[in-house]
Amino acid sequence: MATLIAPTHHSPQQDAEALRKAVKGWGTDEEAVIAILGRRNVSQRQQIRKAYEELYSEDLIKRLESELSGHFEKAMYRWILEPEERYCLLANVAMKNCNKDFHVIVEIGCVLQPHELLAVRRAYHNRYKHSLGEHVASHTNGYFGQLLVGLVSSYRYGGDEINERLAKTEADILHEFVKEKKGNREEVIRILTTRSKTQLVATFNRYREEHGTSISKNEASDEFHKAVNVAIRCIYDHKKYYEKLLRNAMKRIGSDEDGITRVFVTRAEKDLKHIKDLYYKKNSVHLEDAISKEISGDYKRLLLTLLGK
Amino acid sequence: MATLIAPTHHSPQQDAEALRKAVKGWGTDEEAVIAILGRRNVSQRQQIRKAYEELYSEDLIKRLESELSGHFEKAMYRWILEPEERYCLLANVAMKNCNKDFHVIVEIGCVLQPHELLAVRRAYHNRYKHSLGEHVASHTNGYFGQLLVGLVSSYRYGGDEINERLAKTEADILHEFVKEKKGNREEVIRILTTRSKTQLVATFNRYREEHGTSISKNEASDEFHKAVNVAIRCIYDHKKYYEKLLRNAMKRIGSDEDGITRVFVTRAEKDLKHIKDLYYKKNSVHLEDAISKEISGDYKRLLLTLLGK
Repeated sequence: MATLIAPTHHSPQQDAEALRKAVKGWGTDEEAVIAILGRRNVSQRQQIRKAYEELYSEDLIKRLESELSGHFEKAMYRWILEPEERYCLLANVAMKNCNKDFHVIVEIGCVLQPHELLAVRRAYHNRYKHSLGEHVASHTNGYFGQLLVGLVSSYRYGGDEINERLAKTEADILHEFVKEKKGNREEVIRILTTRSKTQLVATFNRYREEHGTSISKNEASDEFHKAVNVAIRCIYDHKKYYEKLLRNAMKRIGSDEDGITRVFVTRAEKDLKHIKDLYYKKNSVHLEDAISKEISGDYKRLLLTLLGK
Repeated sequence: MATLIAPTHHSPQQDAEALRKAVKGWGTDEEAVIAILGRRNVSQRQQIRKAYEELYSEDLIKRLESELSGHFEKAMYRWILEPEERYCLLANVAMKNCNKDFHVIVEIGCVLQPHELLAVRRAYHNRYKHSLGEHVASHTNGYFGQLLVGLVSSYRYGGDEINERLAKTEADILHEFVKEKKGNREEVIRILTTRSKTQLVATFNRYREEHGTSISKNEASDEFHKAVNVAIRCIYDHKKYYEKLLRNAMKRIGSDEDGITRVFVTRAEKDLKHIKDLYYKKNSVHLEDAISKEISGDYKRLLLTLLGK
């Protein structure tokens, strides 16, 4: 469930005018910007961008970029975009520092629905004049690169069919790799990049039954193994994965604001409510309280607004 | 240019009735079947299938399968289908004997436009309840499998931009592999599966300038190398590739009727006219004359009809 609160009716023109008022002249009325854009859904935001462009012959995003700053600016910029555009930007930024930010690429390949991933790949062509796979491939290499390229090139079957025999065989292949740090990496790539999510979840469940522990509980031995772990966690239950990302980022504030921003802007219209509930369950602290305590300023206000406060 | 001759106006009902007359009772009027279906374009054929199903509560394709036989039946079956369905079938049959028929998979990954390949992958889900990449991966292995999976998972950028520096670097990488039988196979896979066709053609041209010979002129050392060669030829100029396929198949009739059928049914509505002209240029024999001489019966009649005779 989403956390975003958006009005059923809104006037893109009035919103554009109010935004203009907030950004023009000396200083910017950040609270007004948040009050409007932080409470509009994806199609409303695009209507506002269009109305603003028509009224003032100026790109709203560029204007906000020049008026805002820091984590607040980054978050607002990412928030305004349509999901496909936003994932293109997230991927493009992440792959320039792929050894550190590889998990963004893995998330895109594993969290998105197959048709959403295709839409992102299409948008990537328009925005960067190259294919997403092409850029990922040129920033990575070895098995690590093969896994990442395979994940963003995947078009998984979306049906519910499960092959139990296959789940058993492939759980064993994965076990040999993640636990015994040996086994065929090509096979691990094949399994994670081509099987349907339903089949993979059956495989991970089978793993737990056979080996008495969750497949996501293991020590990564190198960057390939780290990427495998992120892929497994995103496929198994991306909401749990995002909850943990938030938990770690809140514990060491200053370490992963990009991660916090990413979770909020990509999930506020999807399942941030569920992630927020999980957060409370795991931390006995409400996510909004953690944000209020650890984060400050306009960035905090935007995050709380996206949480539906 | 297409060779197919289809009427501007046709009545799906009348066609369905004529087909019913041709298949019912003892014996089948193959010539009538060819005269109708061999002269209808893809949307007309789908309308006829629909009309036939509505009138006789029977699947036209299944009925024809039971009435016809041999290469004629196979060709008619493949011809009736929509392109996406047909490529799914071609891929599915080919991958069961992938060491011999790998070129069908490579063609699908390299000849089709990016959006056509996506449509095939979507249709594959519906037809086989698995992804195309998943099936290709489970029938292949090693670098050979990585190349094939990469080709059918590609979504190449379709723009005209060329990076000349990249063309030079990657021409050298390809040269080291195809001529010196060494070099990095992972790099060869990366180049062939992620670059845009325009960029790859620039790379192949650069190869010829630098090394004084066409990249497609080389002796394959193993199955991976063979698949690389087919990919290069399909990307460089698929019409030349198909002309040569027909030339070889005509020389040793009985050796590759599946190839002849594939070229005719997939290209009759696209560029078979161009392929036919190339055939004459290379062989000083008209393609229709070669078919009339080497092939017989209803199969011959269907091929000639698709050629616009």
